[in-house]
Amino acid sequence: MAVHIYPCPIRWSDMDVYGVVNNVSFLRLLEEARVDLIWRLGSQDGDAFFSGGSVVVKHAIAYKSPLVHSPTPIDIHMWVSEINAASVSIEYEVKDANTVYAVASTTMAPYCYEGRYPRRMTEKEKAFLERFFDDRRAIKA
Amino acid sequence: MAVHIYPCPIRWSDMDVYGVVNNVSFLRLLEEARVDLIWRLGSQDGDAFFSGGSVVVKHAIAYKSPLVHSPTPIDIHMWVSEINAASVSIEYEVKDANTVYAVASTTMAPYCYEGRYPRRMTEKEKAFLERFFDDRRAIKA
Amino acid sequence: MAVHIYPCPIRWSDMDVYGVVNNVSFLRLLEEARVDLIWRLGSQDGDAFFSGGSVVVKHAIAYKSPLVHSPTPIDIHMWVSEINAASVSIEYEVKDANTVYAVASTTMAPYCYEGRYPRRMTEKEKAFLERFFDDRRAIKA
Amino acid sequence: MAVHIYPCPIRWSDMDVYGVVNNVSFLRLLEEARVDLIWRLGSQDGDAFFSGGSVVVKHAIAYKSPLVHSPTPIDIHMWVSEINAASVSIEYEVKDANTVYAVASTTMAPYCYEGRYPRRMTEKEKAFLERFFDDRRAIKA
Repeated sequence: MAVHIYPCPIRWSDMDVYGVVNNVSFLRLLEEARVDLIWRLGSQDGDAFFSGGSVVVKHAIAYKSPLVHSPTPIDIHMWVSEINAASVSIEYEVKDANTVYAVASTTMAPYCYEGRYPRRMTEKEKAFLERFFDDRRAIKA
Repeated sequence: MAVHIYPCPIRWSDMDVYGVVNNVSFLRLLEEARVDLIWRLGSQDGDAFFSGGSVVVKHAIAYKSPLVHSPTPIDIHMWVSEINAASVSIEYEVKDANTVYAVASTTMAPYCYEGRYPRRMTEKEKAFLERFFDDRRAIKA
Repeated sequence: MAVHIYPCPIRWSDMDVYGVVNNVSFLRLLEEARVDLIWRLGSQDGDAFFSGGSVVVKHAIAYKSPLVHSPTPIDIHMWVSEINAASVSIEYEVKDANTVYAVASTTMAPYCYEGRYPRRMTEKEKAFLERFFDDRRAIKA
Repeated sequence: MAVHIYPCPIRWSDMDVYGVVNNVSFLRLLEEARVDLIWRLGSQDGDAFFSGGSVVVKHAIAYKSPLVHSPTPIDIHMWVSEINAASVSIEYEVKDANTVYAVASTTMAPYCYEGRYPRRMTEKEKAFLERFFDDRRAIKA
């Protein structure tokens, strides 16, 4: 139901020779947003999604406007668009009050790092992720 | 007709805490492959695609197998799947003899950085890119 | 007289395969701290040190304790240890209430990027930097 | 006796908004050079320095000339300037035929990651490192 908003700090070094945040650096910002949602928030319930392990299965991202470094964090709005036994999809909008800079989507899968095999999502993980489920359709990034 | 193969050096720092090449770092490798194709090869004809300017419009990437750092470069196979007046799509396979690590797709657009507006692709740029056009259908990354 | 304290956000990706903030990433954190001091604070007086241009001449850094990613920023204490016509030296301590993680020192020089030549420090730049001058001797990083 | 020369690939993304290889990125190149010396070469003797574990104790680096991205690797010359029971110092020159871009020095210490304590250098590690010992005095980076 809820969109999670992560105010993501931008680094000066996220900019490339063109003086704008580099397209790859955007993915780094999304990584930070996932860490904030899943690891920081998720662990407040005593059971982090990442603690059992997960891998990124795929990303899609579309760039809408050039973003320039500023000491003010950029907001990353994120919500869950799909949950099933073996994966979860997260949608993002990187934006401020006036401009959408990028929209993106990530699919992650629960994964056991020690055994190196996919694992099923636990009920607690599922319950946590459902709090961010939103019935907007997936962005076509 | 031709697939361009770029043997991409991996850095030790491309690995994350899980001891595998990080999902964002893969995008960095693809950036290097584009620089090799478009900037190095493209400028040998005396007219680089990047010299007129271009921006990344979107990426899609799907991860297939974990990749570990090695002093041996990893091959990035790349070809052009679509060309039109305002954009070009590039497909990639990151792989070695035995394993596909990731497949990906990038759409780029010619762009005038000074004026900050999209520009049309030049005939020379189009001719260069057509050398790498391949009739395999776009990968569903 | 004043030590500037920059609460520097750490990224999950600053950690390397050993699960601690990588030694090179520490330099990235120091860069963020300089941007905060010189660019953000410095530009509040209407004359940023960086706007006239500057280059890093040298760095020295000594690592004291392993630092692990956390959503809480890490404090970077910084002050100016030397100012002259052609350079400024900045000292840093990366620490929290209990632990010093690294001490470091950077020497920067005013530099004209367009002409690609060193320039003299302006009076306004010097006045700004003197606010952070501290008579502690330079750290032996 | 021998200087090890590592032809280090530069990435386009090593450049910052000023269009030159960023000062922090230089440290990343030195990391690659150490990995090449200690891990790749060192493991050919069947006993890598890194396999027992090591940490970076300190770095010093002085920048001499701006370096621009090129598809040609930049040579990093490196040699050992000091070896003792608990540490080794490595000196570097980043240069091509005409220009020295940076000189630097790193001190590393053997370290047991599992137990989180410093360890003594093994005889095999010492013998390996002595092959690169050079009686030039340490660079004053």
